[in-house]
Amino acid sequence: MSDLHDFGDHFRDECGVVGVWGHREASTLCHLGLHALQHRGQEGAGIVSWDGEGMRSHRGRGLVADVFGRRSRMAELQGERAIGHVRYSTAGTSSLANVQPLQVTAAGTEIGIAHNGNLVNAPALREELSELGAIFQTTSDTELIVHLMARSRQKAFTNKLVEALGRIVGAWSLLLLTPDRLVAARDPMGFRPLVLGRTADGAWVVASETCALDLVEAAYVRDVEPGEIVIIDSLGLTAFHPFPAQPQKQCVFEHLYFARPDTQLWGQDVYSTRVRLGERLAQEQPAEADVVVPVPDSGVTSAIGYAAALNIPFSLGLIRNHYVGRSFIEPTQRIRDFGVKLKLNPVPGLLVGKRVVVVDDSIVRGTTCRKIVRMLRRAGAAEVHLRIAAPPTTGPCFYGIDTPNRDELIASSNSVGEIGHFVGADSIGYLSIAGMHEAVADDHGYCDACFSGRYPIEVEHGGRPQLALFD
Amino acid sequence: MSDLHDFGDHFRDECGVVGVWGHREASTLCHLGLHALQHRGQEGAGIVSWDGEGMRSHRGRGLVADVFGRRSRMAELQGERAIGHVRYSTAGTSSLANVQPLQVTAAGTEIGIAHNGNLVNAPALREELSELGAIFQTTSDTELIVHLMARSRQKAFTNKLVEALGRIVGAWSLLLLTPDRLVAARDPMGFRPLVLGRTADGAWVVASETCALDLVEAAYVRDVEPGEIVIIDSLGLTAFHPFPAQPQKQCVFEHLYFARPDTQLWGQDVYSTRVRLGERLAQEQPAEADVVVPVPDSGVTSAIGYAAALNIPFSLGLIRNHYVGRSFIEPTQRIRDFGVKLKLNPVPGLLVGKRVVVVDDSIVRGTTCRKIVRMLRRAGAAEVHLRIAAPPTTGPCFYGIDTPNRDELIASSNSVGEIGHFVGADSIGYLSIAGMHEAVADDHGYCDACFSGRYPIEVEHGGRPQLALFD
Amino acid sequence: MSDLHDFGDHFRDECGVVGVWGHREASTLCHLGLHALQHRGQEGAGIVSWDGEGMRSHRGRGLVADVFGRRSRMAELQGERAIGHVRYSTAGTSSLANVQPLQVTAAGTEIGIAHNGNLVNAPALREELSELGAIFQTTSDTELIVHLMARSRQKAFTNKLVEALGRIVGAWSLLLLTPDRLVAARDPMGFRPLVLGRTADGAWVVASETCALDLVEAAYVRDVEPGEIVIIDSLGLTAFHPFPAQPQKQCVFEHLYFARPDTQLWGQDVYSTRVRLGERLAQEQPAEADVVVPVPDSGVTSAIGYAAALNIPFSLGLIRNHYVGRSFIEPTQRIRDFGVKLKLNPVPGLLVGKRVVVVDDSIVRGTTCRKIVRMLRRAGAAEVHLRIAAPPTTGPCFYGIDTPNRDELIASSNSVGEIGHFVGADSIGYLSIAGMHEAVADDHGYCDACFSGRYPIEVEHGGRPQLALFD
Amino acid sequence: MSDLHDFGDHFRDECGVVGVWGHREASTLCHLGLHALQHRGQEGAGIVSWDGEGMRSHRGRGLVADVFGRRSRMAELQGERAIGHVRYSTAGTSSLANVQPLQVTAAGTEIGIAHNGNLVNAPALREELSELGAIFQTTSDTELIVHLMARSRQKAFTNKLVEALGRIVGAWSLLLLTPDRLVAARDPMGFRPLVLGRTADGAWVVASETCALDLVEAAYVRDVEPGEIVIIDSLGLTAFHPFPAQPQKQCVFEHLYFARPDTQLWGQDVYSTRVRLGERLAQEQPAEADVVVPVPDSGVTSAIGYAAALNIPFSLGLIRNHYVGRSFIEPTQRIRDFGVKLKLNPVPGLLVGKRVVVVDDSIVRGTTCRKIVRMLRRAGAAEVHLRIAAPPTTGPCFYGIDTPNRDELIASSNSVGEIGHFVGADSIGYLSIAGMHEAVADDHGYCDACFSGRYPIEVEHGGRPQLALFD
Repeated sequence: MSDLHDFGDHFRDECGVVGVWGHREASTLCHLGLHALQHRGQEGAGIVSWDGEGMRSHRGRGLVADVFGRRSRMAELQGERAIGHVRYSTAGTSSLANVQPLQVTAAGTEIGIAHNGNLVNAPALREELSELGAIFQTTSDTELIVHLMARSRQKAFTNKLVEALGRIVGAWSLLLLTPDRLVAARDPMGFRPLVLGRTADGAWVVASETCALDLVEAAYVRDVEPGEIVIIDSLGLTAFHPFPAQPQKQCVFEHLYFARPDTQLWGQDVYSTRVRLGERLAQEQPAEADVVVPVPDSGVTSAIGYAAALNIPFSLGLIRNHYVGRSFIEPTQRIRDFGVKLKLNPVPGLLVGKRVVVVDDSIVRGTTCRKIVRMLRRAGAAEVHLRIAAPPTTGPCFYGIDTPNRDELIASSNSVGEIGHFVGADSIGYLSIAGMHEAVADDHGYCDACFSGRYPIEVEHGGRPQLALFD
Repeated sequence: MSDLHDFGDHFRDECGVVGVWGHREASTLCHLGLHALQHRGQEGAGIVSWDGEGMRSHRGRGLVADVFGRRSRMAELQGERAIGHVRYSTAGTSSLANVQPLQVTAAGTEIGIAHNGNLVNAPALREELSELGAIFQTTSDTELIVHLMARSRQKAFTNKLVEALGRIVGAWSLLLLTPDRLVAARDPMGFRPLVLGRTADGAWVVASETCALDLVEAAYVRDVEPGEIVIIDSLGLTAFHPFPAQPQKQCVFEHLYFARPDTQLWGQDVYSTRVRLGERLAQEQPAEADVVVPVPDSGVTSAIGYAAALNIPFSLGLIRNHYVGRSFIEPTQRIRDFGVKLKLNPVPGLLVGKRVVVVDDSIVRGTTCRKIVRMLRRAGAAEVHLRIAAPPTTGPCFYGIDTPNRDELIASSNSVGEIGHFVGADSIGYLSIAGMHEAVADDHGYCDACFSGRYPIEVEHGGRPQLALFD
Repeated sequence: MSDLHDFGDHFRDECGVVGVWGHREASTLCHLGLHALQHRGQEGAGIVSWDGEGMRSHRGRGLVADVFGRRSRMAELQGERAIGHVRYSTAGTSSLANVQPLQVTAAGTEIGIAHNGNLVNAPALREELSELGAIFQTTSDTELIVHLMARSRQKAFTNKLVEALGRIVGAWSLLLLTPDRLVAARDPMGFRPLVLGRTADGAWVVASETCALDLVEAAYVRDVEPGEIVIIDSLGLTAFHPFPAQPQKQCVFEHLYFARPDTQLWGQDVYSTRVRLGERLAQEQPAEADVVVPVPDSGVTSAIGYAAALNIPFSLGLIRNHYVGRSFIEPTQRIRDFGVKLKLNPVPGLLVGKRVVVVDDSIVRGTTCRKIVRMLRRAGAAEVHLRIAAPPTTGPCFYGIDTPNRDELIASSNSVGEIGHFVGADSIGYLSIAGMHEAVADDHGYCDACFSGRYPIEVEHGGRPQLALFD
Repeated sequence: MSDLHDFGDHFRDECGVVGVWGHREASTLCHLGLHALQHRGQEGAGIVSWDGEGMRSHRGRGLVADVFGRRSRMAELQGERAIGHVRYSTAGTSSLANVQPLQVTAAGTEIGIAHNGNLVNAPALREELSELGAIFQTTSDTELIVHLMARSRQKAFTNKLVEALGRIVGAWSLLLLTPDRLVAARDPMGFRPLVLGRTADGAWVVASETCALDLVEAAYVRDVEPGEIVIIDSLGLTAFHPFPAQPQKQCVFEHLYFARPDTQLWGQDVYSTRVRLGERLAQEQPAEADVVVPVPDSGVTSAIGYAAALNIPFSLGLIRNHYVGRSFIEPTQRIRDFGVKLKLNPVPGLLVGKRVVVVDDSIVRGTTCRKIVRMLRRAGAAEVHLRIAAPPTTGPCFYGIDTPNRDELIASSNSVGEIGHFVGADSIGYLSIAGMHEAVADDHGYCDACFSGRYPIEVEHGGRPQLALFD
């Protein structure tokens, strides 16, 4: 569910966004919304507000509470309109310059922009724009969108926006704030979620997940639809679909891991979906065992489903330490599996002599998983059976998720049996792709490219491998 | 289990201690041990080490990771001998001066001292020492112990220590570091835990809980016994019982809430004890319901036991946000139950139309509990049945736990029925005192004063009420 | 000489720049150079270095020592080529985004740019570029220069640069770093200084003032000439004058106040110039007095000249407190002239019953000056005669100096007599414009617009008043 | 005058104190007073106030502005009574624990205590108190005084204090705050200054120097006399002399270097005294020269006197950089005299071909002085004549000044000629002891031990050499 939970062995969501229109404390609501979306990005946060005279912004590296913890910071962000962003960034580009929302002056107006996603044609666009004289101050895709708007020959702001969005290809759930409007937009395939809510006193709230609406007591109104542009201004809300319809490709991994369990995702309850994933996993990959133990917190919900389906007792046999610190010095006489040990400790009384099923949501490199299996054995488990409530992740994501290169993914080049051998489990079982689709009740059209290799959009050259077009 | 988990509605542990003797990286091991004990105190941390020439110390307010996160800090704490402390402090005395270990020069030697507990005769001792010319720089009980040692007419260090400990009354698990020895001591009734472990290369580790031994890969050797003084020096380990034997009064609340579930407490597995508490609660206070939902994280383990015993599905219907921040500004148009909402959000899909049993480990003031019941109802629960895996807490603790005054404890002046009415539950059920003792397998002698009012040691005047002597 | 010295009653220099080429510790030399130039800007500092693979940068708000005080910060700035910048910013735009050097990717290359000056055609350029689709992330003029380069149709980097510089009008002393060259350029009128030096082992150093060369032990080679572009690359140094020659308009206020006294400015010794200003002032505006007291530190040197010329004893009758703090809370029962008092205190023994000449370099609003006169009287001065070693400042600067609006300048709408009356002096005397030119030995062509109103370049519309063209 | 000024080659004052009684903003006045006394100690600062219910304190390492710069900090220090302290500490004991005022509970009352001085019998007292069971949390002498008070058998607070002060030997100017009184005391020989002032609305202010009175607009009332105890309480001011009279031994170095030039010290104007020292030096040690250049800032005032007396032009030929930073990294290819160069730069125009007299107030180790002479020569000086406005410092101070050990003092084992040779001056001249006494108008009784070796009080064993008793 979050960075704190994943020991370096999960895919990572890249961003969460929130926007507020028409509330006297718009920035405070954004602050709270970002807190609720913190699991979508822990390396930076920012808010841009329009205070009636100018855009105000504050951005910083770190958690929302660190960036906005000081009352004086919030006091600088006056106004009834604001957008916010939380961000996870890959190493090397975690500079402050890349923390969003980006705030620029373009096309004669001040613009704040916050973006959750990834553009597959970014390298080509960057080259093209550069040749036309664009200068870049960040390495983020977001800057490209504003460049395209600024260069549009269209007169109307909306047309500039449509023209710019028509040029970008990939995954984008986008918020854009100008002095007189708040724009929410979602790519035609709808990779990343984006929902619309309203508070009791009429303020509009747009957010990546419904859990952000809950915290600010905004009622869920509807999803921003794939390919839809929603414009909120002083006249109210306008929505239109300027792009040709495309098959929906919502990210199935949002259901599996990224979204918070209390979020309603594309009309479904994430918690219940994960229980069903566990139940389906039990059907496909049962185990003879004495106890089901989740890897906390990512495996907890599906382990509940798994255990219930097989009527095996469910136990929190691995205890998490929630107090994470940035730096611990390991003694030179090494502690085995130090990194994992800082965060997890087994409860031997639940494990000694037991046949243990350990459940997690995914395996990325396999190294953490191997440490956990070893930890369970050292705590006395007689057998360790590994069950993953998803299919093997065989390919990277190009649509807004931070994943390792393909050759770092253990499932890209190893059979399930080889993986089981590597992690040292007595048995291993993954959910099938079909089983996954059934559990998530696929009447939406999901992207499952990281499992199936069927990438819905070709990725352009630019450091990342060219992929076969699909769909 | 910890400050982060309790929303102001739990008793709070006051301290955790760890000591290391004979390891080249003694401070690093202390640092890790304190990380494992972080749940016992989040307001301050400190380490004192002996580097062969002098005592070095670093102490600070905040979490262990904040206080010791910088490599340079650890580099100042050289030496093979060190003790550490984490601390929770009540408001008003959270000054840096009170953060332990205390480091003083007394009786001709440098002394570091770290203390988990509370002295009931502190006010009288303070007055007596003051009349004899003692000056006090802290308001902590710990300083009193060193004053008593310094004034002892005994020649030998050990005798000074015994004389001093013979004067203090109450709960104390104590670590003391001098240039040539590490002392661990526990009060005769044994209120607070203290365990002894050893690393593979022979270093001694003493800690409040076994989970600290686990992280530094020290094997558990034995408990420091009630009334025992253990002295570790260059000749090895010496132990003796200088005080008259007394009935053991180990704190039952350590099992119920304070200790980490993965700790072995007084020979028992805390996790399993909590499951048994839930099972026993199910026997005594069953409910007709569709789902069992714990208050995370404190109610999770007993809820698992409760649900299993009654064969009702267990669901994490309340989701915790682990990213806690020190300060959030609430919008002026108030969000209902703001404080709780920052940390908990219900999963409506699991609750709508359901008869819900919500399980927690205790109720202190009742206000948080009321908010949670309200939150569940708003999320659609048809019925809310509250079950507490402990008896009503009717009195404060005087032995090292931070509790509100008696009149703030809702159970001190309200019947169970009145409490149920206050929190708005459809039904309410507490565990009986006898049931609790059975679940924790009481062959040890437990202190249950906060439930029963049977205080094992009289409390002296000094701001706190005089109590009847018991036992 | 610096912000610390001026009590809000001086014009303020806007920037200092330094660049190093061909030294293994280029960033360290920049750091030292910025320290020497700290008086030219105290609100922000930055360094960009090229480490052979990419541009590295660190920028921050505050003093050089605060921004670069941590060893780890400097360690990130590897490479043999670096440029640095110190900056003063006007209120409201002191955001981190505006701290230089600016680092961008443009025209297919990474560029770092640091700029001392002010472009008078910035508003028009900004509008024009905006219409062409440029997006702006800062409000600084510097960004405009890179936009112009990025849009140039020229192929060669140098031609792009010349084309861009040909479009900008105003004051600019500029450093530009790319992966393979260091560029230093100065506007055709030469408003701001820029000097070239070389270390014993052959590294090139370019800096705003010679005092920066002194600290890094670079020998002064020559000034970058007005209108000259100097390019240093692996082949050595190339210089050319691509722009039509114009009359030189070097800023006379650099001599009067901005430059450090130990700097050689345009071939002259600043300290000696200031002594001559004082001597000339003594000729033009003598006084019958017992003691000459400077306003420290800005008036010290000219006061020495004044006192010597009239053979009146020179005394430091006003003592400065060098420990300046950002915030002091004034008691509600107000201390008279609180702000000035925090920094200056009179020595009554030197003043009681004396006829005092107090010397400063300029009067801006007159309020601080009035407080100083009052302070001297309260300390017992029998008479206070104010002498200013410059002509009255009647107009703002548009060429890189931060000055108040015209109507805030006391001399813009008051006669000298009225000013004397306002500040409460027994007499007042300014230096004449002719006297000033003589003292600074004007064979260079100086800009004296703030005294004479003869602005050498018209200022375009954009918030500032249109001015008559001169020269 | 201060740490910032001295390049490691000056004696250093150890402390400054300020106390306020009867002002609604007592802490704010203390804050300002400490700012004025900042030159007496830059390594730590603290304030203790009595808010009617308890003592509040804030202490920290660093400059006054850093320690008290946040409004919230000051808000915690309510009350009409407060004392403050600035401190310089020797390396190794600069821990926070030693920052004053010390705040303790002793003898039944809360006490804040701030101390400027040094006790020569501290080691013996510490040993004696330790044997009686005292515990020490600091290594400062100040703690000893409170221990002595706490152990006094006297009943009345005043008698406890007198008894305690009667036991200590050495230099002490002391402030003590209890809930109902402010005490100011000065040792019988009166080594350190302490003055009494009063604000217009009747509040009492006690401070180390009159410059602190000036800033808070308190009128100077009188000095606290040597051996006097002044008690201010709700009834007013009481003063008494409980100790036998002793010859006055006020520190002559306060006049020479420590005190601010604008301070009135023991009835004299420090600035004027320093001018007289320069004049007398001119008489005793004239030079044939073209220019007199002071080492800023310590040599400026006496250089003015010296230059005037010999009618040689006075020039600020060495320019100071006031922006001091804690850490600068020197390039590996070393810059000559790096440390000095960061702070001083010569003005070659004033020096080339000139016979230069350079004036400073003292030479400690001689190394800095040597660098300055070298710097002047490299800047072109034809001759460099060194003049010191004090006699050679041949011995350390034991009365509250931080001085190196005797063998580090260049004058302790070298003749004046040898010193001149070491520093590389063409000639060298010190003031005579008799000349110094004449210049400071010695009708007070001054301690000149560091020049004459006549130590007024024997120093006890304890790490420092035993010295012959004098007087």
